[in-house]
Formats: sequence, C-alpha cells, structure tokens
Amino acid sequence: MPDAPSATRRSERARAAILAAAGELTRELPYAKLSIEAIAARAGVGKQTIYRWWPSKGAVVFDAMLELDSGPDGLALPNTGDIAADLRELLRGSVAALTDPGFESFLRAMYIEIQQDPEIGAAYRERLLLQRAAIADRLAAGVQSGELRPDLDFELATDLLLGPIQSRWSLGLGGLTEAYADAALTAALTYLKA
Amino acid sequence: MPDAPSATRRSERARAAILAAAGELTRELPYAKLSIEAIAARAGVGKQTIYRWWPSKGAVVFDAMLELDSGPDGLALPNTGDIAADLRELLRGSVAALTDPGFESFLRAMYIEIQQDPEIGAAYRERLLLQRAAIADRLAAGVQSGELRPDLDFELATDLLLGPIQSRWSLGLGGLTEAYADAALTAALTYLKA
Repeated sequence: MPDAPSATRRSERARAAILAAAGELTRELPYAKLSIEAIAARAGVGKQTIYRWWPSKGAVVFDAMLELDSGPDGLALPNTGDIAADLRELLRGSVAALTDPGFESFLRAMYIEIQQDPEIGAAYRERLLLQRAAIADRLAAGVQSGELRPDLDFELATDLLLGPIQSRWSLGLGGLTEAYADAALTAALTYLKA
Repeated sequence: MPDAPSATRRSERARAAILAAAGELTRELPYAKLSIEAIAARAGVGKQTIYRWWPSKGAVVFDAMLELDSGPDGLALPNTGDIAADLRELLRGSVAALTDPGFESFLRAMYIEIQQDPEIGAAYRERLLLQRAAIADRLAAGVQSGELRPDLDFELATDLLLGPIQSRWSLGLGGLTEAYADAALTAALTYLKA
C-alpha cells in the first residue's frame, strides 16, 4: 500500500509549505493586505487546500507563529533563588520578543485577530494563560521563600510586571529598552516584595 | 450667492451622515466586515464622497470616535488635593470606558488600526499623548505637594497605573471591575508614594 503513506507525505509537505508561506507573508505585508489567496499562491497550493485545515487567515498565521515558538515547555521561568533576577529575565525577554522584527509582525497580527475573531482570541488566550500560569508558579515560589509578600495576588502581580511593557507596545508608544524593563521591574517589586 | 452656503450645508450634512453611519456600523459589525461600501450605503452617499474626506475606513471610524469624545478639554484630571482619590477616578474611568459597550467597539477598531496603519496609529497616539500629558500634570502636582516621590518618572508611573488595565483589556483577559481598578491603584501607589 504505497499510496496512503505518500498521500500523507504530500499532505505534510503542503501543510509545511502553507505555514512557511504564511510566515513569510506575515513579515512582508501589512496584515490587512495578507490574504488566503496570497498564501496559497506562495505555497503553490489551491485555496481549498488551506480551507481544508484552517477556517481563516488568522488561524493559519496563529499556527505559523506557534512553529516559531519553543512550545509550552519553554514557558517555565528559571528559579535561581533570586526572584528579582528571574523576573528581570522575564521582563527583558518580553521586551526582546516584542521588538524582534521577526516576531513582532506575528504578535501584531494576533493582536488584530484577538480584537475581532473570538475563536483566535480564545486560542491565543489559552496559550497566554499557560505563560501566566508559569509566572504564577515562580511568584508562588517567591512567596514561599519569603522574598515576596505573603498576600500576593498573582494575577495582579503579573499585570503589574508585564502590563506596562505590553501596553506601551500595543499602543506603539516606543521606548521599549532593557533599561525600561529594569525600571518597570524595580517599580513593580516595590509592591511585590515582602 | 445662495449656492455656496447651500453646498456647504449639503457637505456638512453628508459628513455628519457618514460619521453617524460609521459609528452605527462599528457597533454592529466585526471590524473586518466593516467596509467603505457599507458606510456609504448606510449614509446614503457615494463611496467617492467618503474618499473625498477620508483615505480609509479606519480614518472615518477614528473621526466617528472623536465625535463621542469630550475633546481635549475633558482630559484634565481633577485635583482635589488627594492624589489617591484623583487617580482612583482615572483608573475607574478607564475601566468604565473600556467596558462600555457603546465605546469598546471603537477602541477595538482603533487597536486594530494602530497595529497596521501607521497614519491612524500616529493620529491615535497624538490624542493618547494629550491624555498622558494631562496625567503627568496631575502627577507633577502630587510631587510638588509632597504626596508622591520626588524622583518620579511620569512615563513609567503612567504605564504602571494604566498598563495593567490596558493590557488585560487588549488581551481579552477580562476581570475589569472597579475592585480591580482599586487594587491596581493600591499596587501602583506603593511605588508612586513618597
């Protein structure tokens, strides 16, 4: 039965070509100009091949973004025993990801879709909640070690740590440097520390 | 010369009808489905009438949003002499605006355009910077009265106050209540206070 495996291989090749094309075009085009037609043309497949697997361009771009990602295992925060040092890595890493030209266009595309497509919004939030759970784990360890205040609200603490960076980025206010990340951390720690 | 005034009146009427139609449709439709054609049809004008005044649907929606707004004069923060009380109004007001069904769809539309249209992004930021300048004025008064720390960085302080609320909203994380606004303020004030 040589047919089934070779059909599977063809499917896998088409899927990979579509995700690669979506990834390239997300970096090249303003998101409003990105179309399923353009992805199909670049990938060398028909539109209907894309629609067999994805309901919308946003869904393709979301999966193309996940391909770039280290996956849920990459979300865990280090625990060096120094909460300030570990959170510094988190905030500097956020600034680096949000200002990385190769990644920023995906995140802007996702921000657009979150505002308008409830399904992609839900899928993105599911991923975001994994990241936030990983942060909460590290904060909980900091509470247990006595570095952080015992009554810490992890949701609010995460917002206080990442909200300033995220909101500057999403509003296009600029100024996202390592020095800014460190200053935002110092400010948040005033509240977080025991 | 009866013609010129009546042409002006016709123009004003068409402009008002376009802004009203854009406002209605922004509330009714997902932003991706909103088109210049739909605005023109609802307003009873031709597409070319819209393009005479605005380059894109985002630009029309931006102006429609400004119509709802109290204008720059409404941006000044109260100064009751109690910085915590005045900032509490600011944060509660942000939560109220972001969760107001009549206003939220405009803000989501603007968030979409900021990510993809540099011109609308710049116009929106110009407005945002007026609001941030008004907040900085109130913070400066708080520093002068000795309520806030003398070395306060107004940019960072504004991000710390509004970033948690804005980022929860833009990521669709929910939980935006008055109680959340008050908790975010308490946390931020730990750093802001002298």
